[in-house]
Parts: sequence; structure tokens; C-alpha cells
Amino acid sequence: MQVLILREPQIRQLIGPSRALEVVRDGFARLARGEASLPGVIGLDVPPHGGEVHVKGAWLHGTPYFSIKEAAGFYANLERGLSPGSGLILVFDATTGFLRAILFDNAYLTELRTGSAGALAADLLAPRAARQVGILGSGSQARYQLEALLGVRRPERVVVWGRTAERLEACVAEMRARFGLPVSVARSAREAVEGSAIVVTTVPTTAV
Amino acid sequence: MQVLILREPQIRQLIGPSRALEVVRDGFARLARGEASLPGVIGLDVPPHGGEVHVKGAWLHGTPYFSIKEAAGFYANLERGLSPGSGLILVFDATTGFLRAILFDNAYLTELRTGSAGALAADLLAPRAARQVGILGSGSQARYQLEALLGVRRPERVVVWGRTAERLEACVAEMRARFGLPVSVARSAREAVEGSAIVVTTVPTTAV
Repeated sequence: MQVLILREPQIRQLIGPSRALEVVRDGFARLARGEASLPGVIGLDVPPHGGEVHVKGAWLHGTPYFSIKEAAGFYANLERGLSPGSGLILVFDATTGFLRAILFDNAYLTELRTGSAGALAADLLAPRAARQVGILGSGSQARYQLEALLGVRRPERVVVWGRTAERLEACVAEMRARFGLPVSVARSAREAVEGSAIVVTTVPTTAV
Repeated sequence: MQVLILREPQIRQLIGPSRALEVVRDGFARLARGEASLPGVIGLDVPPHGGEVHVKGAWLHGTPYFSIKEAAGFYANLERGLSPGSGLILVFDATTGFLRAILFDNAYLTELRTGSAGALAADLLAPRAARQVGILGSGSQARYQLEALLGVRRPERVVVWGRTAERLEACVAEMRARFGLPVSVARSAREAVEGSAIVVTTVPTTAV
């Protein structure tokens, strides 16, 4: 059995936000037309370590592969200096069911897909001329959401709120440098929401 | 990231039916006491190739790992001389969510677990002195079911029915050789059921 192994750096070279937007858009359209099998999700919690595990699987009808993906968020990892997110994707032959590839993407494709889904929703629902974007959350998904959103909208400014001042400052600085946009810190969730034509939420917390 | 890779031959050396019976019994007991997280199963069908895919995940509370397993049955593989069953198991660190091991068991552990579950049910429900066992199905799971059952009961004879005469003959011959028991071919499902104190069903067909 030949199994192709791809690691995160290779995967990052093979696909980025603009291609992800295309394929996720196509996937949603096929799902809406009944051309995809998308069973329910496995959600497994590991409460002692703030862990949430999600497993998803799908097959686009007529395509040669189906895939199963695992993505975990262990929020207590942050206190240990580890990434909270991890994950991998298994790709199987739709004719035999045999494993064909393992994508050790460390949840990169999950982050990309989630960002694309947010941008596609904004593209369908938000006004064309959305001047201000408010983002709640300053983790990795905040960056992916903004990057994907910039594929469908050109806001004049971005306002970001996060619970941890240090992470929030780092996120805002990175966004400014990467996207060449005015990005500012909001002092509260309310401040990030008021005056924003698009609000992106990327935190699991209810404590705002 | 260090990921332990185990292949089927190693896994077969590490665990067999009698140990499987113990750990599956323990797992069911912990689940009944509320000491296990066991979310719902993903079921993905790939109808053009007679494929069924199941993904399951679980965590025994307080243990250092959780696992996610994939098992596929592509019944059209038989016509191509390929095994219908395949699968693998992913083992994750319950503290960080990081991947720790991949068990390329080709569904061996699934077969073992399913056999154990059948034997444990028989142990709880069937009479102590069950003279005859009837088995419907002559695939790999028929063998695993009988092997596990022999860990809890000592029948005098076994009667097996299967849809394909050639596979049925091969199964019966293998069972006789491996288990040192009188095993005979039933000409119909009815013949395998009548007079059997324990009936084991191992086929997905409804065409009996």
C-alpha cells in the first residue's frame, strides 16, 4: 500500500487563501445541489485539559477520493507555550476505501477552510462597500478570517478585540504588516462591533 | 513531533482475542458507569462502489490518550480480489490533543473488537451449555466471532451459512483446522439457526 505523506510546509506551498476560497465555494455549491455526502460531525470533549476534538468526513460525488479530518483545540496548551490547534487529514480511495494520503497539516487546512467559509458568507451577505471590519478574537483564526475576507471585500480599516492584551497587540501588529491596512485595537468587544459593517467572531468564549 | 507507527503484524503480536475480550469488557463497564466519552459515529456511504465508512472516537476518562478510528467496508473489492475491509486508528495525547501514534491495523483491531463485543453479549445472554452455534456469514468477521466466542463458551458443534459456496467451504475448512471443532455447512440460513443456542450474524445482507 502506497500512502502519500504531505507535511505542513508542502501543503502551505500547494494551497493558500485564494485557491481555498474557490474550492470551498465549489464544495458548498455542490453540497447545496445534493452532490456531496456530508455526515454529521464527531465532537469529543476532553474537559480536564480544555480540549475539543472534531472529526469530519465528506465525499464529493463522482470524485476519486473521500477524506476524514481530525482537528483539535486544546486551549490549556497556550499556558504551556504550545499551539492550541492540531490536526490531520486522511485521504481515501473512493473505489476501494484504502488509505491513499495523510496530510499532516497541523490544522492549516482547517484554518484555511474556516476562513474561506467566513469570507464566502460575508460575500453573500455583507454590503459591497463595507468600510470597517470588526474582529472578535486575536488567535490564528482571526488572521485567517481577515486574509480570506480580503479576497472578497476591501475594507478601509479593521478593529480587533481580544481578551489578552499581549496577544491582541501582537495580532494587530502582524495584521498591519501583512495586509497593509489600518488595524487598530478595540478596548472592548462593543467597540469592535459598533460601526463595523462586517463582524467576524473567532473566539469560543462567552465572557466578553 | 514524535509519532509512533505500528503496522498490522506488530499489532497482531501485541494483542489477540483473549486480551481483547478483557479490555473490551472493561471498556463497556466503564462506559456503563459514565466513565467514557463516546460521541456519535460518522457513517459515510460511497454507493457506486458498495462502500461503507465508519469513524468512531472515544476517551476513557482519566487515561492519557484518546483515539479516533476509521474502518471501511467496500464490498465490491471482493470482485477485484481485494480485501473489502480496511482501516486505521489514530491515537492522540489527551493533554495536548497532539497525534502520538498511527496504528495501521487494516481493521484488525476493529475485527477483534467486534468479535469481542459479540462474545461478551453471548456471555451475558446465552445459556452456559450452548451445544450448537449457528453463524450467518463466511467472511473474516465470522472467524473473529467464533474465535472470541470460544473464549466464553465451549460448543460441541458449529454450523455456518454463507451466500457464496466457495467462500463458505473455505471458511468452514479454516474453522475446523484452527479451532479443532466439528464445523459444518448449512444449506440455508434457516438450517444454521434451527437447533442453535447461539446465533451469530456477520453479514450486512438482507437477502437470506
